[in-house]
Amino acid sequence: MIKAGVIGATGYAGAELVRLLSGHPEVELSGLTSRNYAGRPFWEVYPHLYKYVDPVCAEQDVPALVAQSDVVFTALPHGHAMAVAKETLAQGKALIDLGADFRFRDAATYESWYKVEHTARELIARAVYGLPEIHREEIKVARLVGNPGCYPTSAILGLAPLLKEGWLEPDSIIIDSKSGVSGAGRGLSLNTHYCEVNESIKAYGVAGHRHTPEIEQELSALAGRQLTVSFTPHLTPMLRGILSTIYGRLTRPLSGGQAHALYRDFYAGERFVRVLPPGMLPATKAVAGSNHCDLGVVVDGRTGRVVVVSAIDNLIKGAAGQAVQNMNIMSGLPEDTGLCGPGVYP
Amino acid sequence: MIKAGVIGATGYAGAELVRLLSGHPEVELSGLTSRNYAGRPFWEVYPHLYKYVDPVCAEQDVPALVAQSDVVFTALPHGHAMAVAKETLAQGKALIDLGADFRFRDAATYESWYKVEHTARELIARAVYGLPEIHREEIKVARLVGNPGCYPTSAILGLAPLLKEGWLEPDSIIIDSKSGVSGAGRGLSLNTHYCEVNESIKAYGVAGHRHTPEIEQELSALAGRQLTVSFTPHLTPMLRGILSTIYGRLTRPLSGGQAHALYRDFYAGERFVRVLPPGMLPATKAVAGSNHCDLGVVVDGRTGRVVVVSAIDNLIKGAAGQAVQNMNIMSGLPEDTGLCGPGVYP
Amino acid sequence: MIKAGVIGATGYAGAELVRLLSGHPEVELSGLTSRNYAGRPFWEVYPHLYKYVDPVCAEQDVPALVAQSDVVFTALPHGHAMAVAKETLAQGKALIDLGADFRFRDAATYESWYKVEHTARELIARAVYGLPEIHREEIKVARLVGNPGCYPTSAILGLAPLLKEGWLEPDSIIIDSKSGVSGAGRGLSLNTHYCEVNESIKAYGVAGHRHTPEIEQELSALAGRQLTVSFTPHLTPMLRGILSTIYGRLTRPLSGGQAHALYRDFYAGERFVRVLPPGMLPATKAVAGSNHCDLGVVVDGRTGRVVVVSAIDNLIKGAAGQAVQNMNIMSGLPEDTGLCGPGVYP
Amino acid sequence: MIKAGVIGATGYAGAELVRLLSGHPEVELSGLTSRNYAGRPFWEVYPHLYKYVDPVCAEQDVPALVAQSDVVFTALPHGHAMAVAKETLAQGKALIDLGADFRFRDAATYESWYKVEHTARELIARAVYGLPEIHREEIKVARLVGNPGCYPTSAILGLAPLLKEGWLEPDSIIIDSKSGVSGAGRGLSLNTHYCEVNESIKAYGVAGHRHTPEIEQELSALAGRQLTVSFTPHLTPMLRGILSTIYGRLTRPLSGGQAHALYRDFYAGERFVRVLPPGMLPATKAVAGSNHCDLGVVVDGRTGRVVVVSAIDNLIKGAAGQAVQNMNIMSGLPEDTGLCGPGVYP
Repeated sequence: MIKAGVIGATGYAGAELVRLLSGHPEVELSGLTSRNYAGRPFWEVYPHLYKYVDPVCAEQDVPALVAQSDVVFTALPHGHAMAVAKETLAQGKALIDLGADFRFRDAATYESWYKVEHTARELIARAVYGLPEIHREEIKVARLVGNPGCYPTSAILGLAPLLKEGWLEPDSIIIDSKSGVSGAGRGLSLNTHYCEVNESIKAYGVAGHRHTPEIEQELSALAGRQLTVSFTPHLTPMLRGILSTIYGRLTRPLSGGQAHALYRDFYAGERFVRVLPPGMLPATKAVAGSNHCDLGVVVDGRTGRVVVVSAIDNLIKGAAGQAVQNMNIMSGLPEDTGLCGPGVYP
Repeated sequence: MIKAGVIGATGYAGAELVRLLSGHPEVELSGLTSRNYAGRPFWEVYPHLYKYVDPVCAEQDVPALVAQSDVVFTALPHGHAMAVAKETLAQGKALIDLGADFRFRDAATYESWYKVEHTARELIARAVYGLPEIHREEIKVARLVGNPGCYPTSAILGLAPLLKEGWLEPDSIIIDSKSGVSGAGRGLSLNTHYCEVNESIKAYGVAGHRHTPEIEQELSALAGRQLTVSFTPHLTPMLRGILSTIYGRLTRPLSGGQAHALYRDFYAGERFVRVLPPGMLPATKAVAGSNHCDLGVVVDGRTGRVVVVSAIDNLIKGAAGQAVQNMNIMSGLPEDTGLCGPGVYP
Repeated sequence: MIKAGVIGATGYAGAELVRLLSGHPEVELSGLTSRNYAGRPFWEVYPHLYKYVDPVCAEQDVPALVAQSDVVFTALPHGHAMAVAKETLAQGKALIDLGADFRFRDAATYESWYKVEHTARELIARAVYGLPEIHREEIKVARLVGNPGCYPTSAILGLAPLLKEGWLEPDSIIIDSKSGVSGAGRGLSLNTHYCEVNESIKAYGVAGHRHTPEIEQELSALAGRQLTVSFTPHLTPMLRGILSTIYGRLTRPLSGGQAHALYRDFYAGERFVRVLPPGMLPATKAVAGSNHCDLGVVVDGRTGRVVVVSAIDNLIKGAAGQAVQNMNIMSGLPEDTGLCGPGVYP
Repeated sequence: MIKAGVIGATGYAGAELVRLLSGHPEVELSGLTSRNYAGRPFWEVYPHLYKYVDPVCAEQDVPALVAQSDVVFTALPHGHAMAVAKETLAQGKALIDLGADFRFRDAATYESWYKVEHTARELIARAVYGLPEIHREEIKVARLVGNPGCYPTSAILGLAPLLKEGWLEPDSIIIDSKSGVSGAGRGLSLNTHYCEVNESIKAYGVAGHRHTPEIEQELSALAGRQLTVSFTPHLTPMLRGILSTIYGRLTRPLSGGQAHALYRDFYAGERFVRVLPPGMLPATKAVAGSNHCDLGVVVDGRTGRVVVVSAIDNLIKGAAGQAVQNMNIMSGLPEDTGLCGPGVYP
């Protein structure tokens, strides 16, 4: 059994991790910490887990938690995983960080977009960007994983096949993403007040969202040259899910059938990426509650563009599920252990 | 492996059954039928099951389906399971009917509320009302189970402890239930049009809903005398879930602590009924996606009434999950096989 | 023109008042105060009013605001209107309080349910309970109005005809109410977080909600004897609206036709109460955005009960609209001035 | 008083028209027709209008309705307004068509995208595209108006200032639009079933939606050269509203301040277009229930693109409200007569 600890267990991503880990057949929860709910039973904070998760939320004693764990997950605001990483690696354990601290190859990029100093620069070279479909081999041997952001997961999986094969003009890419509210976290804010969110859609972080450089880092690596993208996230009135609609200009003619074959082949054998049959397009509802990324691709001959639609559950493939997938890969387990359900519908 | 067939697989209850059975470790799907979608792959109708459920929806050839199954589930409008039951029992197989045809001990009651003739009266004596927490011993040996309605499940589990012990004036009971829209099925109707349902709550079937006699039959049996109830269902803007708020006048003083103990003891050992600790009350969100019934009980000394709040997922404990629970009991399997998840939150 | 000032203008009830007053042909806004947003333009806080409401939110300088107003509205948490009332009446102006401070004839009841001292007891005798359909004549001459709570408005209007005529056993009344989230206010709380509220229904304040004594006061007056009720509010995933389902045992036989006639006659000539034709039942969507209370009544001969369904928009007939209606009555204006729209659907 | 008739009054756009016209101080409803509800009182079909709209829905006798009207509105599926137009103009009355039949200058474009023959080609030259902010002068003297589609309204208003001044590379434009469900109409379809729509977002009509050529016609006219756009509509879980996020590549450097000034000046004096102050971005909630189009513009120097966000209520500025605005202009009334409310929030 893998002993797994969760630091920051009572945010939505943390709680989803607790749910997935508590049902994982090869995992034993070694500890849960929470700043806001220390001392209270976890099920009091998340009543769906009553009778499922017994432990009491602990104060954040990192060295102790690391000591009793094989793998540590951090589900904290950015800037808080760096110290944990040092401690974890010093004790010879593995860390999977659901925040942004270890997603960037270049500390300067991180610092300029996140406005904090990176205090564990020496670990950046050891960190792997935890998108298994792109970096599986590195993840297998990693001890430090920067789990991807939710938007980047949907965008990168949506673009990888086209970019890798040079089908897109690199600077033509526009990613228009629509997210459910759980992506904004459980913290209190007028932005997540039911009455402000329901029956409304709005864009936010236009031309400045912090997931932009993360997307650009990975797409540039796939394209083999530096590129910039326009990325616009939107807040939409639903609980879970991200739908990314992605536009790019083709460098040369491509038929719809070729595009579909390209995606089907690129993701052949992938357990969690479903390239939908031609004529079907993703909907967030079809992936909610699962670790899937559903993809559909449409070629628009009239404008010379391709439109890719990508759907994930932001808390699962966009956060906790992907983290568990990474843990499985790092541990030599079948990649879908504890992640095998298809989601709930409707 | 149990070979299980589903007749009427493409309604919401049927599809939920397919999802649960396809993930059940001891079940093999022997066939799915659908009047509306015959000839189409099931995942085309329910895209969340793409890569999970391969079979094509079949025409409704009952004898053939029964022949290749050990257990048959019917998820059909009332009136359509009677012929299937005859065929199933004739072939020596078991039937679990998710409709109303085999819930009543008294054919006349069924006929008067459902306005159809009961054409399999000879089977009524062999049918068991499939609420495991009340009728487990009979279910164990049954070959024909009338799976309870969604509202009755929430109401009966909410009242059983008090009624069985004579704590309530029998004719004082009022059950005010709020249901999500999936309970209305996937059929097209202005009643389920998004724009008519969203941002609205309404009562329907006031003083005449067909679940009333079903509730009364079971509550009368528990109380040991005939009683009538007022039952009002409401349509509310959510996908899944029933919350029943239940009122009854106490026959003698009862403290909050005694009430809680009564419930805790009555449901001790029950895997799927969670009596919440004093101070917590059920919410549908905490049971959505699971087979649980969550219960909370409040004594109102000021008015001499008790208020019980009961929450279920109408498609799971209120339909497909309970059907699988019944199948497990009938098959000698652990009762939670294939039903062990805690649901998804938020 | 009536000069109207709003104290506590940036909560949902306050903002709705600002919207209604800003469109009222006989009103000029004399000032808006807000503790949280003082110094900011009102439209920055409520962007739907951009280009409609110019004033900047002011600090809460009560004497100054009263001086420049003919009518003052307070939309504050309970306990805060008592001092304002003294100032307003001292300056000879009128006050309409949307909170609970002046709804009770008996200060002790207020103090025991609200857990604060009533510091303006001398004004209670001058305060009128502002439900126009019941207390219109007193409102006409009042200078101090306690605007009813949202739940009480729906409950009292739903029960008045039956109670006044002695049709109900006084202690048999159960009021089961379902409210949208705006009733919980704009303040931040996990209870109003989108992800906690959406796709969930729960009861709260069971057997202890503060609107209970307010309902009992008015129903007792109508019945001509002291009575108690069971009242359970529920939080439901919609923005606006309260649906109250009300149960009572009949003292003597009553037909459906008689019941309908009773309501139709009782509310004959009322502009804002719509007794629906037999066969139609209220839905919150049909009143959202309007000052209506829609009523439907069903007699259940089988159980000897009557079921009344009552629907309002909690922010309008349940708060701001009713306050404007009261102002119109106090000012000798047609009662629907500034309130004449039918609401928006869907 | 203007006598106004509505053909197709019981769809959502038709019903919204009825609501607006019934509250319009210079309008008298001359007749309402409905294929589905002929013979039934309008308020039975739309209960929010009980006590507001008395007429019974009539059979579709076009000549009779035209004869008793000054202005006729058609809210019908495309292909059905052509015959009505002939009759209306023959009788010397005015027609405002909410469908697509008279939006195109070129019949061939209409026929190729809508797959029906245009049987009133001789009237196309007399038809005006009813977007007042662009075509006001022509509307003033028109007798036949093709009321714009909902998506085109949001897109064209969002792009007009930049395109007219040559700030955008003409073929760089991408319009990503998110619509509420009422845009899909009241007809029954799995696409509008609550359980299929709620908690889901999906794209549809990718690279093929019929509003594309309408957008291109008007943008080309503004740009002074033929252009093509990528347009993707999305179905999102809300009742009303369209948010369009629009991307274009700048032909030359533009600062954020310049962009804002460009929009502010272009729409100076426009009653229904609100250019939000820098730092604020539109949300559909802020326009719901009103005839506004809210606009925000962001320059992204990093990518050389501009991002415009545009929000409307699809049933008002995107349909019925704009139609009334057109009627006001054609009738010489103040443009906001009967349209002056700010919408309801939250």
